Amino acid sequence: MRTATSLPRCGRALALVAALALSAPAFAQSDPLPSWNDGPAKQAIVDFVQATTVQGSAKFVPQAERIAAFDQDGTTWVSHPMYAQVVYCLERVPLIVKAKPELANVEPFKTVLSGNREAMAKLTMQDLEKILAATLTGITVDEFRAEVEKWITTAKDPRWHRLYTDLVYQPMLEVMQYLRANGYKTYIVTGGGQDFVRVYAERVYGIPPEQVVGSMGGTTYGYAKSGRPILTKEPKLLLNDDKAGKPEGIHLMIGRRPYAAFGNSSGDRQMLEYTGAGDGARLMMLVLHDDAKREYAYGPARGLPDTKIGTFPQALDDEAGKKGWTVISMKNDWKKIFAFEP
Amino acid sequence: MRTATSLPRCGRALALVAALALSAPAFAQSDPLPSWNDGPAKQAIVDFVQATTVQGSAKFVPQAERIAAFDQDGTTWVSHPMYAQVVYCLERVPLIVKAKPELANVEPFKTVLSGNREAMAKLTMQDLEKILAATLTGITVDEFRAEVEKWITTAKDPRWHRLYTDLVYQPMLEVMQYLRANGYKTYIVTGGGQDFVRVYAERVYGIPPEQVVGSMGGTTYGYAKSGRPILTKEPKLLLNDDKAGKPEGIHLMIGRRPYAAFGNSSGDRQMLEYTGAGDGARLMMLVLHDDAKREYAYGPARGLPDTKIGTFPQALDDEAGKKGWTVISMKNDWKKIFAFEP
Repeated sequence: MRTATSLPRCGRALALVAALALSAPAFAQSDPLPSWNDGPAKQAIVDFVQATTVQGSAKFVPQAERIAAFDQDGTTWVSHPMYAQVVYCLERVPLIVKAKPELANVEPFKTVLSGNREAMAKLTMQDLEKILAATLTGITVDEFRAEVEKWITTAKDPRWHRLYTDLVYQPMLEVMQYLRANGYKTYIVTGGGQDFVRVYAERVYGIPPEQVVGSMGGTTYGYAKSGRPILTKEPKLLLNDDKAGKPEGIHLMIGRRPYAAFGNSSGDRQMLEYTGAGDGARLMMLVLHDDAKREYAYGPARGLPDTKIGTFPQALDDEAGKKGWTVISMKNDWKKIFAFEP
Repeated sequence: MRTATSLPRCGRALALVAALALSAPAFAQSDPLPSWNDGPAKQAIVDFVQATTVQGSAKFVPQAERIAAFDQDGTTWVSHPMYAQVVYCLERVPLIVKAKPELANVEPFKTVLSGNREAMAKLTMQDLEKILAATLTGITVDEFRAEVEKWITTAKDPRWHRLYTDLVYQPMLEVMQYLRANGYKTYIVTGGGQDFVRVYAERVYGIPPEQVVGSMGGTTYGYAKSGRPILTKEPKLLLNDDKAGKPEGIHLMIGRRPYAAFGNSSGDRQMLEYTGAGDGARLMMLVLHDDAKREYAYGPARGLPDTKIGTFPQALDDEAGKKGWTVISMKNDWKKIFAFEP
């Protein structure tokens, strides 16, 4: 009887240790995607994870090769009516002009200072580049990090009156967590500034700085007056991580082809093509913003309005159909868009 | 008595589970650096790991921030009398000329084809750049990977008649493993080509492609005749990952300051300065090649011969002394240099 009574005690203790040790895989057995409605999009994600991670599957992928790439603006958080980073840059213009008053009467700074939204909406790509160069460079990487940190923890989106980081899509956070729980390394692959996104990516997405691929500017190593080494951000673009730049950036920063890629616009087309050109099971998904009530509706695919930025043209929808990419309907596939929804 | 007899049984079972779960830290209790002689260099490594990874230590570093950077040529493998990658490029010149016969009478290709080692030794940096551009670009990243893979698994060093990858330093492999077993992410940070080193880094160092930082060339995304997406290597240098380029490359690719950095030459000075400028415990080490018998001896620090490439000048030795960097004497600190030694 000694043995009989001692084993259950021991068994319970062992079970507890085992449960603690195995808590991550255990999680995968409940619904890993609770904010998703049942449907082809959710199913595509679950099927992909099973095909690539269950031992013995014909399409099993060794853990070291499990890479998933997520575009950011419009894919993991709200990008309308303006990218958060562009808002950041515009809001910094008065500070830049304070330091260099001679810019006050020079375009495009003059227009930005006027606060005339109609005139600002007409700024060209070239104007915007001048503003980005003036507001994102000429300071050390540490100063830049501190400034973005301050802004991102206080600035609010005008529609929801919430921090931009509160406007991340809960369903995409669940996909990231689900992939990571199954041995995937998750990367942000954004047209936005690499250093900008790195400031909050770990806290918001659980993605460390070294897994943020974005538009990259050069830095210059030098020394402060104290002799302390510093890196200064230069107005020199090394790689524009958008469109064809996305697979180029992925090769540069990761050196492996992703198995899964998530986007929402023409800027993501090449990344999805590149991902899909690999062998075995691959998952390519595009978020379609077709929910004007809970978020925004824009295309112009499927007759949705053309909002000019972050567009999802009909040609992209056609390519998706032809290549077996899955289009995620925010309206139909997402039970909940934001974590703060009741 | 039931309790008294049952607990030890249970205790043993729990101890077994605990030992399995905690096997990595348990490893640290045997000698993690068996190829190192006892001395200040070995002690500096062990002290650093303990200070930064033992819970409750005043200098504890959260696991996510544990980054260690290793130069390659002369730090993790033999780089004399010529960098392996330079040998690769020179050996590829006849193939390039076969494809483009007009190069046969153009310098520096003419000199390389002559096989005249004395003339080749006089090639300038500019000549070398022409050779690198011709031999490392103009092909897809997949073709390049296949070619390097073929070369690195067959080409042999003329002194040892062994594969270059057999000439890695066993003590440094042990440091990498020891750091990884204690939660560090290990990176190669090399002046060599990023794509070149990525081909074998995982197999040789246990370092995946995404943790190789090297000199970076641009690629261009396009399509093969079949429509398949391809990335072609361009003769466009994005970053020369040497000297000041090393901290710049670390910021670009990792976005965090390393806690430990290992080098062996002037090319690593800025990386060590940058690493050492961080707070808390930091480990900066320089390999001094002072073992002409088992490997090579060169400085010119400490009166060692000046071999012109990969030099360790007296000024670097002085800076190391002033800043508390540890100089590793191959002769005195390394019990064994290569794994193949008896």
